[in-house]
Order: sequence, then structure tokens, then C-alpha cells
Amino acid sequence: VLKTSRAAVLTGYKTPLEIREFPLPQTIEPGAALVRVKLAGICGTDVHLWHGQLPIPLPVILGHETVGVIEELGHGLIHDWSGQPLSAGDRINWSSSINCGECYYCRVRPEPTRCLKRKAYGISYDCSVAPHLLGGYADYIYLRPGTAIFKLPEALPTEAVVGAGCALVTSLHGIERIGVRPGDNVVVQGSGPVGLASLAVAKACGAAQVIVLGGPPHRLEIAKRFGADVCLDVEESSVEERRAEVLELTGGFGADVVLECVGIPLAVTEGIELCRDGGRYLVLGHYGNAGTIEFNPHVVTRKQLTLAGSWGFEPRHTKAALEFLSREREQFPFEQLIGEPFALDRAFEALQATASWSTAKSAIAP
Amino acid sequence: VLKTSRAAVLTGYKTPLEIREFPLPQTIEPGAALVRVKLAGICGTDVHLWHGQLPIPLPVILGHETVGVIEELGHGLIHDWSGQPLSAGDRINWSSSINCGECYYCRVRPEPTRCLKRKAYGISYDCSVAPHLLGGYADYIYLRPGTAIFKLPEALPTEAVVGAGCALVTSLHGIERIGVRPGDNVVVQGSGPVGLASLAVAKACGAAQVIVLGGPPHRLEIAKRFGADVCLDVEESSVEERRAEVLELTGGFGADVVLECVGIPLAVTEGIELCRDGGRYLVLGHYGNAGTIEFNPHVVTRKQLTLAGSWGFEPRHTKAALEFLSREREQFPFEQLIGEPFALDRAFEALQATASWSTAKSAIAP
Amino acid sequence: VLKTSRAAVLTGYKTPLEIREFPLPQTIEPGAALVRVKLAGICGTDVHLWHGQLPIPLPVILGHETVGVIEELGHGLIHDWSGQPLSAGDRINWSSSINCGECYYCRVRPEPTRCLKRKAYGISYDCSVAPHLLGGYADYIYLRPGTAIFKLPEALPTEAVVGAGCALVTSLHGIERIGVRPGDNVVVQGSGPVGLASLAVAKACGAAQVIVLGGPPHRLEIAKRFGADVCLDVEESSVEERRAEVLELTGGFGADVVLECVGIPLAVTEGIELCRDGGRYLVLGHYGNAGTIEFNPHVVTRKQLTLAGSWGFEPRHTKAALEFLSREREQFPFEQLIGEPFALDRAFEALQATASWSTAKSAIAP
Amino acid sequence: VLKTSRAAVLTGYKTPLEIREFPLPQTIEPGAALVRVKLAGICGTDVHLWHGQLPIPLPVILGHETVGVIEELGHGLIHDWSGQPLSAGDRINWSSSINCGECYYCRVRPEPTRCLKRKAYGISYDCSVAPHLLGGYADYIYLRPGTAIFKLPEALPTEAVVGAGCALVTSLHGIERIGVRPGDNVVVQGSGPVGLASLAVAKACGAAQVIVLGGPPHRLEIAKRFGADVCLDVEESSVEERRAEVLELTGGFGADVVLECVGIPLAVTEGIELCRDGGRYLVLGHYGNAGTIEFNPHVVTRKQLTLAGSWGFEPRHTKAALEFLSREREQFPFEQLIGEPFALDRAFEALQATASWSTAKSAIAP
Repeated sequence: VLKTSRAAVLTGYKTPLEIREFPLPQTIEPGAALVRVKLAGICGTDVHLWHGQLPIPLPVILGHETVGVIEELGHGLIHDWSGQPLSAGDRINWSSSINCGECYYCRVRPEPTRCLKRKAYGISYDCSVAPHLLGGYADYIYLRPGTAIFKLPEALPTEAVVGAGCALVTSLHGIERIGVRPGDNVVVQGSGPVGLASLAVAKACGAAQVIVLGGPPHRLEIAKRFGADVCLDVEESSVEERRAEVLELTGGFGADVVLECVGIPLAVTEGIELCRDGGRYLVLGHYGNAGTIEFNPHVVTRKQLTLAGSWGFEPRHTKAALEFLSREREQFPFEQLIGEPFALDRAFEALQATASWSTAKSAIAP
Repeated sequence: VLKTSRAAVLTGYKTPLEIREFPLPQTIEPGAALVRVKLAGICGTDVHLWHGQLPIPLPVILGHETVGVIEELGHGLIHDWSGQPLSAGDRINWSSSINCGECYYCRVRPEPTRCLKRKAYGISYDCSVAPHLLGGYADYIYLRPGTAIFKLPEALPTEAVVGAGCALVTSLHGIERIGVRPGDNVVVQGSGPVGLASLAVAKACGAAQVIVLGGPPHRLEIAKRFGADVCLDVEESSVEERRAEVLELTGGFGADVVLECVGIPLAVTEGIELCRDGGRYLVLGHYGNAGTIEFNPHVVTRKQLTLAGSWGFEPRHTKAALEFLSREREQFPFEQLIGEPFALDRAFEALQATASWSTAKSAIAP
Repeated sequence: VLKTSRAAVLTGYKTPLEIREFPLPQTIEPGAALVRVKLAGICGTDVHLWHGQLPIPLPVILGHETVGVIEELGHGLIHDWSGQPLSAGDRINWSSSINCGECYYCRVRPEPTRCLKRKAYGISYDCSVAPHLLGGYADYIYLRPGTAIFKLPEALPTEAVVGAGCALVTSLHGIERIGVRPGDNVVVQGSGPVGLASLAVAKACGAAQVIVLGGPPHRLEIAKRFGADVCLDVEESSVEERRAEVLELTGGFGADVVLECVGIPLAVTEGIELCRDGGRYLVLGHYGNAGTIEFNPHVVTRKQLTLAGSWGFEPRHTKAALEFLSREREQFPFEQLIGEPFALDRAFEALQATASWSTAKSAIAP
Repeated sequence: VLKTSRAAVLTGYKTPLEIREFPLPQTIEPGAALVRVKLAGICGTDVHLWHGQLPIPLPVILGHETVGVIEELGHGLIHDWSGQPLSAGDRINWSSSINCGECYYCRVRPEPTRCLKRKAYGISYDCSVAPHLLGGYADYIYLRPGTAIFKLPEALPTEAVVGAGCALVTSLHGIERIGVRPGDNVVVQGSGPVGLASLAVAKACGAAQVIVLGGPPHRLEIAKRFGADVCLDVEESSVEERRAEVLELTGGFGADVVLECVGIPLAVTEGIELCRDGGRYLVLGHYGNAGTIEFNPHVVTRKQLTLAGSWGFEPRHTKAALEFLSREREQFPFEQLIGEPFALDRAFEALQATASWSTAKSAIAP
């Protein structure tokens, strides 16, 4: 075992990541674990964080979509979240957030994704404070007590888990809230990781047709590979053309469900008009605050719409996602979303690759 | 029986109603009915129609909240919608809209309130065309085949039925969509007829507390009489003060459910901020198009909200409303919403009384 | 056009069907249709009817799973239930029951499958009374006004529609009531048409695994072809073995959902024990009264179960079934359920083939 | 502070309780609490335990419905389950069971009432093992770490909390599962504590009428006091008479919802027949295994019923129950269920009073 771990650190917004060295923790707390990183995904959120669009502490080790191998387990950590035995050498994935389990949103309502003390690996931890190693862009990551850890089945490739990343869990949670029923006509706005994952989940829920509005072409290719019935490139079509096409494909009425996976406010303006009367609209892509739109409440009343938002995910969604991947991998090869992984010292290039949309997403293999 | 019927006719927007005389139909079609009007409610929607805010044909006999007595029944109309026997002399109420029963929204989805051929008494019929008498501000009204008619129980006063008007059915439908569960903290925005009805329904659903934001004082008095736990006068308080008060009353988190019964777009801006994370918001008051607001979709994602709209109501809601009134009349005396009725030739004064908010609502007794 | 139609008539329980000749109706009522039968399915229910296990009038022309071609349309019947134009020569299918649309269960609740005046083609009509031809085992069938007719898409084979028969609509309705969610472990009890259809619907809803308990082997072959993850032959295994296997396949807890598609009371005893705590159990196969079981209500409390029954189906399920077939035909080739069709004069042989389980089901091509 | 605590101990089934003395714990573990008992309710379940009808360890200190005052708090226990500050001298109530929070039913499904390691005060703990004092019939009770404790509002009388006991939480959980909607016709089978609590919750959910089938007369008196619309004494009426009455009161169709709160298997036979088609049936009273009934699955299919069971309750139901009591106490004076409390040394008499139904329930004030 090394005594130190390298990590790619965001020290200031819009500046290159720095490779720094941190001491490995001397002792592993009861319930905690030290994990050697195998593959760390670069999420679109990391790009937003790099731009300073969300309030986080600096310096921070980014990386919240990670697969690793257990190096050492703290006292008492003998089972994973599902009850499977854990030991050093096991390949694992984990929920990127830890809930306190005691606050109003953890207990009373409950809406655990809105935990008042929620902290996320790769996002919420100042890496200048021990145990430092709380992000995925690193040789090692330290998992705090209470982390929901999942032992990976042997047949499930690391690349599929990182390729699905936090997109698939986000989609599973969102679609649980808005509902996709067998036979529904579904529009997915966006063909980034969340859009592709939502397409996959909608198909698996028995959607009659899934229409993807997105781009660029290489992502729409994956959408087709994933079974999209129709893909429209948003660069090659106008709002009016897309609306006409969706109406045409839905008997003139509009979609039963529209899943927003874009994060651009105007997508909501467009998307609400794509719902049929009595339709459902999921605002899933607005993790960041990207500003306002003009919005007419009369439309919600008159079209008798249901709109829902969905924030993050719970450990049970991580479990469901891993099962989904195991079960549906042939139909939805998420490993194809990531290209050749970058070495850790090229972490900033990896981030830029995701930022530039030159791949669906990128990854770091330390 | 008279051979003619007077009616108060809207001949042009923003001009006084005219009293005109129309011939009674010579024959009653099979399934239709001729009804003598006992009491016709003036709905806030009638004020909007008078201002020309919704596309309707002119001239029109207004009035879609009516209780009458059967004068003559068409062939085959022997039972009311619930299966009770009907005969001349029975006091009745009816659903103001008729669905076609055959279109996409009547059959396939179904979302019958969005029937593609829906027509409403007192709103959608040009009274220059026979059978003319298709609105409530008149001596007689003609009920077309397919109207959902309800015989009124003797113990239920005409004034309570007209006082509840289309507000109670609208609230029952809306709250069915958004849900109010026992123990919920509920905010009702608005203390007009829809707000008061929503307060009543929320209380009857077991809401822990209902906070009404409205005015003027005479309406808030009725809200208190109906059991509102807290009333805030919107003329006497700022948006910030109301928000602080709602947070104070809900442990700092916000309401479980907010019911918008105002129809002013800015109420939606305010109301969404009154929901706790994971809360539910009903856009119920925007029957008319009153313009847009600035709206940030990020709030829906981050607060993990559900929003729903609700349009009109179905016959089963009319049935439910009449049962609700029969059951809960002591607690919610809707008859108190209407003052002394106006004679038919003073219909325009009655409309102005509703427009000026000098009563909660007014009514015409021909 | 012929002036008469042959039909296979059940004149007495447990006696051979008789071929009789009936006059074609002289006039087609408004809204009605005369249809030339292309293919009539033999349902397991027909076998029960033949045994006298359900109260029906005699004589009766059996056959409630039929595809035909429009010979003549009554006045005003110009669109099918979904709004598509209809004309003579169109190939159609229809809902086997007609609801009154006016009773307590049609209107008030509504539970339209429990319509108080429901009548079904091939089951409820005495064929000695005009218009006689109200069952599918015949050259012609007469569709009464109010029948929910569906024009078939060209690409959908007649054999697939009849192969899916009333099983698929029954399953869609039942699974709508009990719910199958993505990732659920599902047990299907039975591999007759309803069991196979339930397997198909459960797979399409995203079930993680579907375990089929049934037989004989040729039906389990089809189950495998339809994607069953595990099939257990009930002739080759004991109740205890099946329970052990289901527990083994579900982490020791039992299935999330068990779908009873057998119709034998003891299947319910077995099936309830296959549910995990908090699981759901659908009693779908007990269309007929097959007697009682010993049942311990404590199990429902302690295991915190939900049980649901489902009766027949609504027109919207017929629409959904035809869409399901069009969409999923490759994965679920229902046409394989029926063997070579029988000529009309061999209708009794066809019935015996279904009774003896020598095919999954049989069909008549007049 | 005393150094010992008396407790009434069940040492053998069907033998008198013995008063024994136990040492108070020397130290309070972190997160635990020592509580002086103010009032301990005698639940019908205690009678079943006394009869040996459920598998429990002996000797045991009975009592799982308790209000007490904090004597000493373990380290770190500074807030109650809802986040309110806790200190010595506070009057509290607590959930009688502790979930492990880690098993399949706590985490994965989740169905926390089916926790694989669930233990309940007054039921599951052998009192010969330290810390001994884990039941309510005692001077002191020791609350283990993880207990969901609730500080009681000053205005809420101890007698109301114990009077509602575990009946109200059980009803809240059960009715959450089966649903009671505004306007529903509800039958409650049983007028013991669970029946009365279910009546109260059903009324608060907006039930149109609640019909109680129970006895003896002094309990039906309380039912009327709680707002039962109709009460039928099961000693004074036959199954047929009750069925006729329920049909009469529900337009000939049966109840929308029937809540079984009896625990006698034949009640289920009777109750299912009281549901309308499409109705819902809750098996709530069968906490114990009281044997089997003859049951016809065909009825579930034909009547298209939903049946649900419900086991115990979660901490959030305890919170909801305390809020319900605070809010609705005037309408549902649960304190009236218990008579004059018994001294601790008369605990066995108290148990016999509950067993003999001479009061609705009894209580012990040490």
C-alpha cells in the first residue's frame, strides 16, 4: 500500500485542475473504508462545478461516479448496503451522498434526497481537511461511515457502471416520480447521459414510443442504439418543427410524458407544449440554477398537466440501477458512453472532453 | 306555462346585460328537459366573460350555476344521473358541461374534462339559435339530451347549492388531482368561492391546519366561519410577511400542499415558495389566461415539487359536491356566500355585485 | 352476400355443438354492423361454459374472441372506437362486452367491468331470439350499437389478435390493478393463455425476472419463447419444491408480485406463500366459481399483503392490447398459441382441442 | 431516585402476573434513556400474550403503550425523533418497536414494520436479562438506543395518549394502506380500541358514513360519541341482518371500504360480503393467528376487490397519532376509553379488566 494518494483538485473556478498528493488516513474509522479507485466518471455536473455554478467549498477533489476496490475496511463494516458480505479486494460502487437519517426530510416526510445535512463525495468536501480523500479523481477515496456501498457482480463491467454514472440513478428516481406506463408515448428532451438513461428506463417501462430531441449526432447514434424510436437533432430543427413532429407521432395530441433532461430553461417552455392534455412533465435536468423562463400558469390549468421535479437519488436507486444494468446491459450498453479513459494526471483533459461534448462522457483510470 | 321566457343576455363585452324574450321550445327532444329557474348563481367566470377574456359566441345567456324545477321532461328521461326517478316538479341541479363521450379525451385517455366537443350552459351557446334558452339567467332553461341531471334532496337548500356553485366541484376535482392527506398543512391562496370551497374540502380531508391568504375581510370572516386555522389579508401583508408566517406555522419548512385559487399569475410565484421540499402545488384558479410570470425550473427540481392543474369537473364531481353539501352543511354553510338574490331584470346589478367583490357571490331569482 | 349464416350452437351442457343456420338480419340498426367472421378463438371460458359452470342462456352461439371483416355498417357508424374511419371491407376486432354507460358501476364509481347490464358476445345471448348471430363460432356476427370496434392495422396478423384473445386484455386490466414495476420479481401461476399473456405484460413492464409455474411442456416452451426466466412444470414438482425454488430465486424473501392465472383455488393457497412480506397478489384466473380454500387472514396482516381481483376488461384495454401486439409482436408471438384453424363444421373438435390442452388454444376459420 | 424498580412480570402463560423488583441500570448507554412510568396501557394483545397465543420469551414485563417522564438521558440523546430538544423531566411517549435500519425490509423494499430484527417493548425482551426493564408495567422503563421518542405537548393529556395506545397508530397505518377517501361509505368491524380508532380516522378522512358493527353496548356508546353514523350490536343481530342493513345504507351496493378490527376469522367472511364491487377490505385485526376460514377466490375476481393487510406501525405513525390526538381530541376523546387506573401491584386485575371487556381498555399508574 502506498502512504499517499494523488488527487486532481479544483482549486479555483475555471482554472486547470491541479494534481496534489495527500496522506492516506492512518486509521480507518469504524464503518468506514479505504478504496483504490479503478475508474472515475466525469459528470456534466463536474463541468458546472468547474464553472462555479453551484456553491461548493474549495479546494475540492471532484468525482462522484466511481468504481473502486476495497483496500481496507473499518471495524464493523462487514456487509454492503444489500447485506452481501464485504472484504478487501471487492470491487464496489456507492451512493455519492450520505443522508443524516435524523432530520425532518430523512424521517418525518420522508424526502431523504432533501436531507438537511446531505453531503456528496466529489462535491461537498473541502479536501484541505482530513481525511482529504473524499472525491473520485484520485488514487484512493475514503468512504465515511454510513456510505451506501454496493459490491458489484462479477459479470458487470466497471465501464458500464461508470458509463451509467449518476445519470441512471437520477433517471430511475425521476421516472419513479412522474411515472411511465406501458403504452405511453414519451418524449425525452436531451441526449446527454441523463437523457440516454431516461430513454433506457422509459423503454424498459414499456413505453410505446420514445422520441429523443437532442444532439450532437454521435449522441443521437447512441440513442438509436438504445432503441429510440425517433431522434430529432435540435441543431437541425426548429422548435416548431419538433412540435409538429411530436404531434404527428402522437395522433395530433402530444406525448403522455415528457422528460426534461437538458438543464436549459427554454427546454421547459418547449417541452410543456409537447404534452397532451392531462400529460405529465418531469423537470429532471435542472440540477443547476440556469435562470428563468416566461411561464403561463393558465397552461397548467387548461391542459390539466402534472409537473414534477426530482432531486438526486436514494441508495435504493443505486441498487436498482446496478440491477438494471445487470439485467438490461445488452439492450443498453452504457459502457459505450465513455471513450478511452484518461490517466489521473490528465484529469483536466478528461474534464474538458466532457465539457466539449466530444464524447458522451469521459472517465479517469488512475 | 308561459309561452316565452325572459333572459338576461350578454350582447357585447363590457356593456350592460339586456333583458330579452325568447319562445319556449315547442317540443322537448327525447332525453331533454325544460326547467324553470329558481336561482342562478353569478360566478367570477361570468365577470371574466363579460370582460371578453375568454373566446365565446355572442349573444349569450350567461349562468352556469343554476337550480331549477322540472317543467317538462323529454321522452325517455326518467332517471337522473344517479338513477333516481325524475318527474315534473322535481328540484334539480346539473353539470354545466356536456361531454361527447366519443372523442380521444372522453374515451381513450380518458380526461373527459378536456372533451374535444365540450359545451357549457351559460358559456358556449349562441342564444340567437334555437333552442335559445341554454343559460341560467332566465325564467327557463332547456337541458339538452346527455345533460347530467341531479335531483336534489329535500333537506338541501337551493341557496347552498348555488352558493357552492361551480367552485365546490372545481375544488373537489382539483384536490382529487393533487391530494390532501390527513395531517397535511395546507395553504389556500384566495378566499373567493373557489378558495372557500378548497378550504372546506381540505378540512374535510383531515388537513392539520389550513392557512388562507385572501381578502377582503368579509370573505376572510367566512373563511374563519368555515374553520380556517389562520387567515392573512393580502391587502394588509407583504409577500415576505406571508411567507414568514407560513414558515413559522409549518416548523420552518413550508406547507405540504398549496392550493392556488386566485387566477393572478403572481400568486403562483408566491405560492411555489410556500411549499416545503417535496410539496405539492395545485394551479386551480387559472381558468382564464391572465398572462405570464418569470419562473425558474430549477426550483421544481431542487425542491422536488409536484405541480398539477385541473380543468372544470366531471358529472361525478357534481354528485360528490351535492353529497358533500348534504353531509357537511353545518360546518360549511355555503348559503352564506350569496346575499339577497336579485330579480331577473336586475341581472346586470347582480353581475356587478360579484365583479366588485361586495359579496362573496350574488344570485338571481327570476 | 349469403342470406343465411351457419353457426355452431351450444344447445345443452356437455353435448356436442350443433351446426344451425340462421337468417341474416334484414336491416342493420343505426350504429350496428354485420361482420363476416375470419377467425374465432376458442377460449378456456368456452370450455367452462360447455360444462355448465357459469349461468348462461341456452341455446347460445359461443365465441367471444373474433376477428372479422365488415360486411355492412348501420347508419351513423362511421368511426371505430378510437376515431378511425370505418368502411365495409375493414378487418376489425371488438370488445366482447357492451356496457350500459348509465348504471351505478358505469357512472358513479366507476367500475365499468361490473356494469349491471353487461352482456357479452358468445356468452350472454340466447341465439333463438333475433338477431341471433351474437357469437363468433359462425359465418357472420352481428355487432349491436355501442360495441367498441377497432380497425386492425394491416401489419397485425389476424392470428396474433385471436391468439392473444381475451387473455391479453384480461392481463392488461389485472396488472393495471396490482401493478408490476421495473425491477420486480414476478411469479406467474399458470401457462395457459392468461398466464402467457401475463408473462408478456410483466416482461414489458420491466420485471427483473418472471418465474412461470405451469404446464404442460408445450406451453412452457412458449413461455420460454416469450422470455420466462425460469419455468417450473407443476406436474414435475411439488408445492414445497416450487416454494423453495421461488425463495432461492428471490434472495429468500419471495416474489414482489404473484399473478394467479390458473383458476384452481389451491393455486391461491400456494401463491400467497410465494409473496414476500409487503408483496402483491393478483387473483386473475378465478372467472369461474371453482370452490373454496382454507385461508388464514392472519397471513394477510402479518405479511402485510395486498390482494386484488380483476374482472374482464374495458374497451380501453382492447385498444391497449392491439397496440401492445403491434409493438411487441416479435418478442411475444401470440400467433403461435393457436394451431391450424378448424373449419366451422368441426367447431366441436376445436372446442375439444382447447379442453384437452393439446394446443395452447384453438381457433375456427369459417 | 430509587435504586430498584418494581415490575409486573408474566412468568407463565395463564398464571397471575408477579410483582418483582429489578435493579435500575447503573449506567445509561449513549442514546438510551431511563424513564419513570406515569401510565401504562393494557392492550388486547397483552391478553393474547397472557394466553400464550404468540411466541414470546418468558419471563417478560408486559406493557407497550406507555407514557413516562425522563429520569436520565444517555449521552448524545438531546433531541426527540422529531427534532425537539429533550431533557430530564420531559413527559414522553415512544414507538414500541425498534427497527434495525439495515435489513432487507428496513432498506431495500422498504417495509420497515417487517424488519427482520424488530423487537418490541413489553413483548420481545426476556426480563431476566439486563437491563431487565423493557416493559411498561413497571415503575421504570429503560429505552434502548434507537428508540423513537416523542416529547408530548403540554396540552395533550397522558390519558388520551394511553387511551389511543397502539390502536390509533395501527389504524393510521392500516388506513394509509387501504385508503379512505372523502365521501366513502365505510364499515368498521369491531368496536374495541382498534375499531374505535379506525372509526375516528375514517371520520377524519371525510368518510360519508361510518357504520360500526361491534359491541358490547358500552363500547358502541363510545362509537356514537366518536361520531359513528350507525352502530349495530353483533350480539343483537345476525350476519344476514347486518348485511341487509349495510346494503340498505349504501344504496344496495355495499360499502366502499370495510375495515376489519376484530381478529376473529369469521369476521373476514362476513366483511368481504359487505364490500361493493370494486371495494376495498382491510385485514387489520389479525395480529394473532386465530385460525382459518373457508374462502372463495372467485369472489375476489368477480367483485374486483382489493384486500390489504397492515402490520404494526412505523415511528412516523406515532408522530402522526400524537398530532391527530392534539388536533382532534375534542371530537375523539380517547381518554374515555380507559377507566380509573390500577396501581402497579394490581396489574393482574388491570389485565383481567381488559380481558373481560368490562372497560374499553384499562391502565396502570405505578
